[in-house]
Amino acid sequence: MIATIQESPLFPMVNPESVAFYGASNNFAAMGTNMLSSLLALGYPGRVYPIHPSEEEVRGLKAYKNVAELPEAPDLAVIVLPTRLVIQTMEECGKKGVKTAIVISAGFREKGEEGAAEEEKLLAVARKYGMRFLGPNCIGVTNLHKKLNTTFMRAEGRPGGVGFASQSGSFVTQMFDYLARFGSGFSTAFSVGNAADTDLVDVIEYLGACPDTKVIGMYVEGIRRGRDFVRVCREVSLKKPIVALYVGGSKTGSRAGLSHTGTLAGPDKLYDGIFRQAGVLRAKSVDELFDICRAFCTLPLPEGKAVAIQTHSGGPGTVAADACGRAGLSVPEFSAETSEALSPYVPHTGSCANPVDITYSKNPEDFFGSIPRVLLSDPGISMLLVYYLVPNSMVETPFKRLGLSGPEAEEAARGWLDKQADAISALVRESNKPVAGFTFRGIMEQFPQALMERGIPVFPGPERAVAALAGMVRYRKYRERLVKGLE
Amino acid sequence: MIATIQESPLFPMVNPESVAFYGASNNFAAMGTNMLSSLLALGYPGRVYPIHPSEEEVRGLKAYKNVAELPEAPDLAVIVLPTRLVIQTMEECGKKGVKTAIVISAGFREKGEEGAAEEEKLLAVARKYGMRFLGPNCIGVTNLHKKLNTTFMRAEGRPGGVGFASQSGSFVTQMFDYLARFGSGFSTAFSVGNAADTDLVDVIEYLGACPDTKVIGMYVEGIRRGRDFVRVCREVSLKKPIVALYVGGSKTGSRAGLSHTGTLAGPDKLYDGIFRQAGVLRAKSVDELFDICRAFCTLPLPEGKAVAIQTHSGGPGTVAADACGRAGLSVPEFSAETSEALSPYVPHTGSCANPVDITYSKNPEDFFGSIPRVLLSDPGISMLLVYYLVPNSMVETPFKRLGLSGPEAEEAARGWLDKQADAISALVRESNKPVAGFTFRGIMEQFPQALMERGIPVFPGPERAVAALAGMVRYRKYRERLVKGLE
Repeated sequence: MIATIQESPLFPMVNPESVAFYGASNNFAAMGTNMLSSLLALGYPGRVYPIHPSEEEVRGLKAYKNVAELPEAPDLAVIVLPTRLVIQTMEECGKKGVKTAIVISAGFREKGEEGAAEEEKLLAVARKYGMRFLGPNCIGVTNLHKKLNTTFMRAEGRPGGVGFASQSGSFVTQMFDYLARFGSGFSTAFSVGNAADTDLVDVIEYLGACPDTKVIGMYVEGIRRGRDFVRVCREVSLKKPIVALYVGGSKTGSRAGLSHTGTLAGPDKLYDGIFRQAGVLRAKSVDELFDICRAFCTLPLPEGKAVAIQTHSGGPGTVAADACGRAGLSVPEFSAETSEALSPYVPHTGSCANPVDITYSKNPEDFFGSIPRVLLSDPGISMLLVYYLVPNSMVETPFKRLGLSGPEAEEAARGWLDKQADAISALVRESNKPVAGFTFRGIMEQFPQALMERGIPVFPGPERAVAALAGMVRYRKYRERLVKGLE
Repeated sequence: MIATIQESPLFPMVNPESVAFYGASNNFAAMGTNMLSSLLALGYPGRVYPIHPSEEEVRGLKAYKNVAELPEAPDLAVIVLPTRLVIQTMEECGKKGVKTAIVISAGFREKGEEGAAEEEKLLAVARKYGMRFLGPNCIGVTNLHKKLNTTFMRAEGRPGGVGFASQSGSFVTQMFDYLARFGSGFSTAFSVGNAADTDLVDVIEYLGACPDTKVIGMYVEGIRRGRDFVRVCREVSLKKPIVALYVGGSKTGSRAGLSHTGTLAGPDKLYDGIFRQAGVLRAKSVDELFDICRAFCTLPLPEGKAVAIQTHSGGPGTVAADACGRAGLSVPEFSAETSEALSPYVPHTGSCANPVDITYSKNPEDFFGSIPRVLLSDPGISMLLVYYLVPNSMVETPFKRLGLSGPEAEEAARGWLDKQADAISALVRESNKPVAGFTFRGIMEQFPQALMERGIPVFPGPERAVAALAGMVRYRKYRERLVKGLE
């Protein structure tokens, strides 16, 4: 196991100071051009050398006829060429001393036997020169902390803590916007494609050492190096959680995966066993995968499985309580001290039991201050789950009644909501217990965004919030088991 | 069973021509005032009579000291008064000849024995005068088709086809915005509260006969009249699907429900049996409940369980295929004719198998025209599931390259996307097979909104889309079984 990313053979690929780019031109419809454009759009600060047989300049950069002409041996070559040109290009890169490559081009193992033979040749060339490469049939790497994005989609949002190892490029590119909407983002995401050389195991090892990565997500169609996978994941899991979406466990999923990346999948039970041994949390859906990752990015680990639920509506509180029970979390009754401490803040129509249901606020600021403070101080409570669904317009109304104009009331409401978000995020830090929110309104509204900016994950619906908290509890247990196993 | 809503004793409550309103005043902070404001904001066209002991006018309407003074016996009285005044008020309404009431006030059975005794008295008064009432401890009724909304939340969005019977008021009020974002909406939604008189069974009977209601959703904490429930649901299920979220099956859920509405819940297995017998589809989450309802609102019923998946990205296609397998749907291989017919539209990097993966479009219009037409013509295919994730900005780019200005390109992109939405919705009508979409981008973006406006439901994620389609297949089977049972 490596201790730092600098020790990883993937380091130059993920943190390159210079990149040779094959397949970009001044034709905007070409995939390679799109990929180079993404790299430039993100503001990649390193040196970029487009390689093109005829153009003098590509996207405003001086172009080179071939890699031999370059003034240096770049850290990385990105290859977006017709399949038949890939092996020869790799050979030329090797001769020049290029350290790593990303082979975007498809048409290898996923296309059957002939393609598999070509892939073997590609691997042999890379080995000959001591090069490591990603792909083929992938969309490359995104390291948002280093402004590196080799994919054809523009990166959106801020760099975040989610390291990602994916057997599908889509789950890199198509999650930029998704994660950004949740105020989260990738640290480094890899699309391994056919994984001829660099596979999930290599990537997990890298991400395990990556200081920007708080949690590792995986999209898995099938695992080839099972033993290495378990070994590396066990070690990494001690440091940070790994969460996987495995889609090869059904007949329909395994057949689709085979035609997608040529990966042979195995039955669900086998993979459940592998994941359990490896300390990897299995997610049930794409949303659950990223929901659990988001929770780990910003929240402290829960000490136990006891959840306090706080709501202003009975139904959503009851659904949350039911979801907790189904997910193996408890919703314990509060101590007499806690119930008593809550009573000044809860009107007689509400409930000081768990879920705490205020029905309406006597003093609206209690909801994000006094009540959560009481709940988080209860030593029998490990986590807090808060339901909040008040549109900005309802917060504005009282300000308007005080005589404020429309825009003034809007601003006052924004300020008030920001203050509530500050209050509850301060409580997470003080108590060192996780707090999550859920809503049925759009997560793009100001209040969920304000909470997520401050590290309080907000989920669209109670079941998703509960699944994320339950994921954290599962990880804590896994890790305790792994620690014991190593003793 | 009633054949028309006019036969239902609930008809005057849900379609009132006149309403007496207790508890509204000129104090904007009062719940009753908020409720009256919602009613007026929606543009309720009937006659409204605020009843107030001292005010001459409430919210611009002439107020009356008591119900006896009214110029007519209203169809409905809405009662938002302190608990101690409710029974006497019901008595006065009865004397006046008011036909129905909605008792918003809480403090009855959910508060223990004493409250239960008061609730019995309330019921006795209503029986004495032949009045039907909803509640107590509820937030009333929303009939968007009649511009009736007695809840404290402003109704949003258009009237839709989702009839709703809820043991939580929140799942009425807090779904206005939720459903509107999905281009869907309630027909009539009931919050039954403690259900002292009108309960879920009465409401289902009403909604079964309601011509605006395409599907009935339910939020259930516990069912009291089990036998009647099964009987009425079986009959209604023959005409339209019923979908239920039951939250009393776990210890945590049943305890929370008890404190919420005083309902005694039963174990999951018992309820699974009741729902199965009744022909009611059980949903696993709030999202699944409304996702299934949305699908039923606009799509034809599938003939079988075979899904064609169409994607431009391998990963999301594979996840969708895996989700189908887990949900009991099939993703069959295509006939030779279908594969051959697809081949002109799919580049060699793609796949003409199921999932059809175009990887990129040779001609982007094929994606919503030629390809779905081929897939829906295959007699072995019952449903089509389409993955689409292209931001407007990407659609705009080629128009900009053709020399259009920014706003021109935006408009051209909007026009192009609307045209694609028209194309695919025409195919649903032609083929009479359900088509659903999924995306990882925000559902508020233009293209998902354009599809949903045209009756193609779009889901945030493949698992949710598959659960909705699987719900339709389950209903078809249920109904076939029910039909046989009646023969």
